Amino acid sequence: MAYKGAGVVEVIDTEYPSFELKDGPGVNPINVGRKVPHGAILRTVTTNICGSDQHMVRGRTTAPEGLVLGHEITGEVVEVGPDVEFIKVGDIVSVPFNIACGRCRNCKEGLTGICLNVNPDRPGSAYGYVDMGGWVGGQAEYVLVPYADWNLLRFPDRDQALEKILDLTMLSDIFPTGFHGAVTAGVGVGSTVYVAGAGPVGLAAATGAQLLGAACVIVADLNEERLAQARSFGCETVDLTKGGPQEQIEQILGVPEVDCGIDAVGFEARGHGTGAGEAPATVLNDLMDITRAGGALGIPGLYVTGDPGGIDDAAKKGALSLSLGTGWAKSLSFATGQCPVMKYNRPLMMAILHGRVSIAKNVNAQAIPLEDAPRGYAEFDAGAATKYVLNPNGYIK
Amino acid sequence: MAYKGAGVVEVIDTEYPSFELKDGPGVNPINVGRKVPHGAILRTVTTNICGSDQHMVRGRTTAPEGLVLGHEITGEVVEVGPDVEFIKVGDIVSVPFNIACGRCRNCKEGLTGICLNVNPDRPGSAYGYVDMGGWVGGQAEYVLVPYADWNLLRFPDRDQALEKILDLTMLSDIFPTGFHGAVTAGVGVGSTVYVAGAGPVGLAAATGAQLLGAACVIVADLNEERLAQARSFGCETVDLTKGGPQEQIEQILGVPEVDCGIDAVGFEARGHGTGAGEAPATVLNDLMDITRAGGALGIPGLYVTGDPGGIDDAAKKGALSLSLGTGWAKSLSFATGQCPVMKYNRPLMMAILHGRVSIAKNVNAQAIPLEDAPRGYAEFDAGAATKYVLNPNGYIK
Amino acid sequence: MAYKGAGVVEVIDTEYPSFELKDGPGVNPINVGRKVPHGAILRTVTTNICGSDQHMVRGRTTAPEGLVLGHEITGEVVEVGPDVEFIKVGDIVSVPFNIACGRCRNCKEGLTGICLNVNPDRPGSAYGYVDMGGWVGGQAEYVLVPYADWNLLRFPDRDQALEKILDLTMLSDIFPTGFHGAVTAGVGVGSTVYVAGAGPVGLAAATGAQLLGAACVIVADLNEERLAQARSFGCETVDLTKGGPQEQIEQILGVPEVDCGIDAVGFEARGHGTGAGEAPATVLNDLMDITRAGGALGIPGLYVTGDPGGIDDAAKKGALSLSLGTGWAKSLSFATGQCPVMKYNRPLMMAILHGRVSIAKNVNAQAIPLEDAPRGYAEFDAGAATKYVLNPNGYIK
Amino acid sequence: MAYKGAGVVEVIDTEYPSFELKDGPGVNPINVGRKVPHGAILRTVTTNICGSDQHMVRGRTTAPEGLVLGHEITGEVVEVGPDVEFIKVGDIVSVPFNIACGRCRNCKEGLTGICLNVNPDRPGSAYGYVDMGGWVGGQAEYVLVPYADWNLLRFPDRDQALEKILDLTMLSDIFPTGFHGAVTAGVGVGSTVYVAGAGPVGLAAATGAQLLGAACVIVADLNEERLAQARSFGCETVDLTKGGPQEQIEQILGVPEVDCGIDAVGFEARGHGTGAGEAPATVLNDLMDITRAGGALGIPGLYVTGDPGGIDDAAKKGALSLSLGTGWAKSLSFATGQCPVMKYNRPLMMAILHGRVSIAKNVNAQAIPLEDAPRGYAEFDAGAATKYVLNPNGYIK
Repeated sequence: MAYKGAGVVEVIDTEYPSFELKDGPGVNPINVGRKVPHGAILRTVTTNICGSDQHMVRGRTTAPEGLVLGHEITGEVVEVGPDVEFIKVGDIVSVPFNIACGRCRNCKEGLTGICLNVNPDRPGSAYGYVDMGGWVGGQAEYVLVPYADWNLLRFPDRDQALEKILDLTMLSDIFPTGFHGAVTAGVGVGSTVYVAGAGPVGLAAATGAQLLGAACVIVADLNEERLAQARSFGCETVDLTKGGPQEQIEQILGVPEVDCGIDAVGFEARGHGTGAGEAPATVLNDLMDITRAGGALGIPGLYVTGDPGGIDDAAKKGALSLSLGTGWAKSLSFATGQCPVMKYNRPLMMAILHGRVSIAKNVNAQAIPLEDAPRGYAEFDAGAATKYVLNPNGYIK
Repeated sequence: MAYKGAGVVEVIDTEYPSFELKDGPGVNPINVGRKVPHGAILRTVTTNICGSDQHMVRGRTTAPEGLVLGHEITGEVVEVGPDVEFIKVGDIVSVPFNIACGRCRNCKEGLTGICLNVNPDRPGSAYGYVDMGGWVGGQAEYVLVPYADWNLLRFPDRDQALEKILDLTMLSDIFPTGFHGAVTAGVGVGSTVYVAGAGPVGLAAATGAQLLGAACVIVADLNEERLAQARSFGCETVDLTKGGPQEQIEQILGVPEVDCGIDAVGFEARGHGTGAGEAPATVLNDLMDITRAGGALGIPGLYVTGDPGGIDDAAKKGALSLSLGTGWAKSLSFATGQCPVMKYNRPLMMAILHGRVSIAKNVNAQAIPLEDAPRGYAEFDAGAATKYVLNPNGYIK
Repeated sequence: MAYKGAGVVEVIDTEYPSFELKDGPGVNPINVGRKVPHGAILRTVTTNICGSDQHMVRGRTTAPEGLVLGHEITGEVVEVGPDVEFIKVGDIVSVPFNIACGRCRNCKEGLTGICLNVNPDRPGSAYGYVDMGGWVGGQAEYVLVPYADWNLLRFPDRDQALEKILDLTMLSDIFPTGFHGAVTAGVGVGSTVYVAGAGPVGLAAATGAQLLGAACVIVADLNEERLAQARSFGCETVDLTKGGPQEQIEQILGVPEVDCGIDAVGFEARGHGTGAGEAPATVLNDLMDITRAGGALGIPGLYVTGDPGGIDDAAKKGALSLSLGTGWAKSLSFATGQCPVMKYNRPLMMAILHGRVSIAKNVNAQAIPLEDAPRGYAEFDAGAATKYVLNPNGYIK
Repeated sequence: MAYKGAGVVEVIDTEYPSFELKDGPGVNPINVGRKVPHGAILRTVTTNICGSDQHMVRGRTTAPEGLVLGHEITGEVVEVGPDVEFIKVGDIVSVPFNIACGRCRNCKEGLTGICLNVNPDRPGSAYGYVDMGGWVGGQAEYVLVPYADWNLLRFPDRDQALEKILDLTMLSDIFPTGFHGAVTAGVGVGSTVYVAGAGPVGLAAATGAQLLGAACVIVADLNEERLAQARSFGCETVDLTKGGPQEQIEQILGVPEVDCGIDAVGFEARGHGTGAGEAPATVLNDLMDITRAGGALGIPGLYVTGDPGGIDDAAKKGALSLSLGTGWAKSLSFATGQCPVMKYNRPLMMAILHGRVSIAKNVNAQAIPLEDAPRGYAEFDAGAATKYVLNPNGYIK
């Protein structure tokens, strides 16, 4: 599955991976020829279409044509490099979307989202993503995973894993990412929570907040179909086509504020009201308004350092006009950045395997063949309340 | 409801409280005559029989005859002292069992279980309890609560509160106490948890662990009726009449260990096997055996500094023979002490009011009239899988 | 000491306080007539001029004429209200600048900077400050402190306290405030730290960072005299008249980044280079540039919701143009708001009393008579590397 | 340097290491022949004699004759295995005494003291130590370090490292171990701290407590020479030959208790008073007595699961008679186990390199040739207030 220019994705033929990072679209020159004896080659069990892929597909980035997409990967190990000691051929494994070396200061501190050794451009990396070092994406039949002993999460039982695969496939990105949003927003037992955005990450954040014991989770969006999806698993909802969130929150909770705010939208945010246009600071300013004094904002939604499609010069440079004084007066705190998936994927796997959470149902996961991926991208972009899971090798019957 | 000697409790007549701590059974001389202008007088809505009351009733303490029992209190405010500013007559409120001044170093740090200003003997206090300063118990029609603005948790809506009163009554002690056990044992999303003891605190700990997102909660006891109660809300169980816990845990989890261990038994612990006798270090040694390296033990179960009924000289002095080397080799940590109720009662109230947890059902709460309390004490002592809630003023219909 | 219009402060006559908040300049109508039986009247031992007072004095706020200034107060208790139980006449006490009730949800959680019960406008309050409820300032001979048992920190020994008074006077605000900046920036043993601003709060933050074990503390300013003050106690410095901080940091550390960033400047920030003008987002954007991926920003510097003197329409509304994408790419976190003084003043007092820290020397504290306060305001505003301590009752000989 | 039976250590000839763990004294059969392509071979720069070696040398363990000792190692990399990517020949590196794989659940969580993959007997390992898997000790000219990219801490500059080598050599064990004791005892700015034991770990704990900002650090021992060493860097001391610690603490602090208690003694503890005999629970029971309610106990001192030389049957099985009731009444918490060195060695290195701490001076480090090691063991065992640093290859001039 390759990006072929703004609005276009295509299934292309690619080579079977070897234990080396070869040159190709988007590969950082410094990474070209990098040996990967610590890697594993996976046959893809599932690989999901992610909202952050859409930024590239919409042409909002500098992604080169031909870039193979896909950073949400679950697979079966078919080959391991000579340095791999604990991961075995035949293991069914989840791949954290952030690639990490397991040997740098940040990895040792658990900050695998900002590994120092995998992306020559800056800390942090991902498969199949622009400016992330050039590691080849996983919306493919096979994929190479470096530092396999460190990165891979092995499922304890193959049959159980394949039975719950639509849930487990969410461990590579959106479930930990949404959960991280909830954790960094300070969600705990009894919290009231506002989630901006009812896309898959927003629904995963809402699910995560429930799992953390939140008393009430409120999900907001301009898209009624997605709001209905949120209501399907016990969330309250705010319809932003009717205006800002404060009044609707008060109707739900009796007070116009929540304990915790989560931004599951990011820089392509839009304003309030029917037909609201893009207004990138809307979500963060909303969250400062509605989060109670002493609260926290978890910001898994992506903000970029440059946006060729930004609405004005400030947006093109990634600058936002934030009412920080409002936040300061309320002693708010803010947590940003890629989720360090490895911090959460094992506990969330345990919750799935013991039947404590139904993430696939909550995000409305739908498996489709690899060749239908272009349709998946299009429907998702159009606002379908669906999480598309590609099934390249027919593991899902 | 007064303690009248080993094995005997009786309903007695007591005076309506005033804003002063008068002399009486168990009142520390230094506290006699203490003015309480910061207090509130409550008409008791509910007041529960607690397992820790049983230590006194069984004669395992130096509690004096005539001591009015009861530290699990929910009430309606009928009078407030002149210093009370925010609590109002008519409020329905939960009373944390630990009395705290809200003005000392420990209270300022949130350590309300070890307040420095309410008990001349040592940090920490409670209503109706031996060696706790002499504050009169709440198994009565009316009760005085000092430092009312600080101590009391007001329920937001009277009707809603009375409707959910069998759940909310657990906020005064056992729900926070069990939850504290889970928190200090490090329970989080995806944890596997072992709870020693299926009495009300153990069931509350199990409920708390579920609310915190535990993947699997295992409750152990020698009493099959109580184990059945644990299974009724999704716990796994270990029957200790069949021997130690390790093998049964392995059958449940596939490994003979858990992430987190909770001691909801305390110093009156018994050994394993049918007819096992008292063996006070059993639970802690078990927990060190079965908790995984790096795990934590939460110890809400009471350990005492002296036990007149102890099985040997060491036990009489409160000394336990602990295999600390086992714990040390596994880098375990241990958390002890009274739960600081105020840290947890508001969030747990929110979880109850939003229907996220059914603590009354899980501990099998049963309301009985005040005059039936002696029966409640007896049945509870005999091992009934029931949490007895006294209803002195007929609020529960 | 009263504010008498932009640029003007004057010593005026005021009434001796009573246990009631009377009407006066800046008193919120809802607070007028509020009874304060829980208060204490202090004879002022010391009261310091604070940089945040300067925002008012420069006319950058809506402070009314006649407002009595002063929120950094140390005093001797001369009278207590009827509800005060533990604070005694004769105690020498430090007054946290944030007024707190000790009875609301936020106070119970230790968030005394955003108490819900003392300021009808919004959470949080302070003495002698605009929009903070109207509590009368302490740059006076006597001052009323509400909720005295909760708010006041008693020094253990009167003579020792008066001997160390120039250090202890910093406990009411700047030492905890700077320390809070360091704590929320994640400073720990071995950290490298950048402090923007070498005014008293910046120097206190640097002192706090050293006390927390920082390996290297770098202080930046445009004012060479203040930088020299920072060097006097072992800090490295960055001279911003020479341009942005990155290159100078690299010269000091070998890398162009630090672990932790502290903003001790706030909304009146200026740009880089000689004669740099006001540019309110400069400090925060700098900090995002120079703080390493995974780091944190502590922001004790004040940001406001409205600034009549702002450089443009955005600034007048308190909106900042922030390069949040830079921060997001580095997974930075941000902590804002008033320091909850009570969280830190006792431990910092212990460090002072045991001779572990010399805060007075580090911020160059100078005692002056109350009547010289206008000169102190003027010199401080002109950039003196001095912390002015008023001595209204001659306690400092 | 090999253990040759109770009380005997000798310099022996050993083979130059290869990238394989060969059979030898104390090597677990499952580990024999284990390939170590991820390893590095170091030429030893320094290697220290540790108090925990003494347990073996005194014959208090089941250590086999011929075991090569030494787990405190600093070295120069002379060879790397084929899987090593970031560590280079010529690097000067510190070796954490706990061997860790960097690939298991515990390592990913930072719990490198209980790695699951290096010791077939149980979680956790160390070089040259009984029951730790059989990794060869480093009191030798060369040593093999497995998982080199994960385990090794590289010093940024060779010359600077060799200049500060007597400080940096403490990073392999005692400085982090003592520091961990302080951290887990809750030491922070302003704390009062009691350290039981003035051996090198106790002095390192005291140093760590100071670095963390403690207001007052009190060190206790029966050995006056070691107490004098503690006083040399600003600690207060308690002489236990004069009786229990409570009274002496009160003389120092004005109260008979401290905020934080650290056990730097372990299972070979002795009682109080002149000529006090072994009494293994003394230190822990003391700490429960003198640590204030709400405090914590950090327990870096080693407790074992079996002690052939124990004073009675309980001690031989590693069971201690603990007054847990005292701890419970005070809500104390307890943290045990090997220090996870990797969590602390980088920040402590930064503090050393920036001149913030003088650990070598504080523990009175003395370099001696490898062949003098038997003398070092003997003098250390006799109570010398000295930390012996072996200098096998003459790096220290």
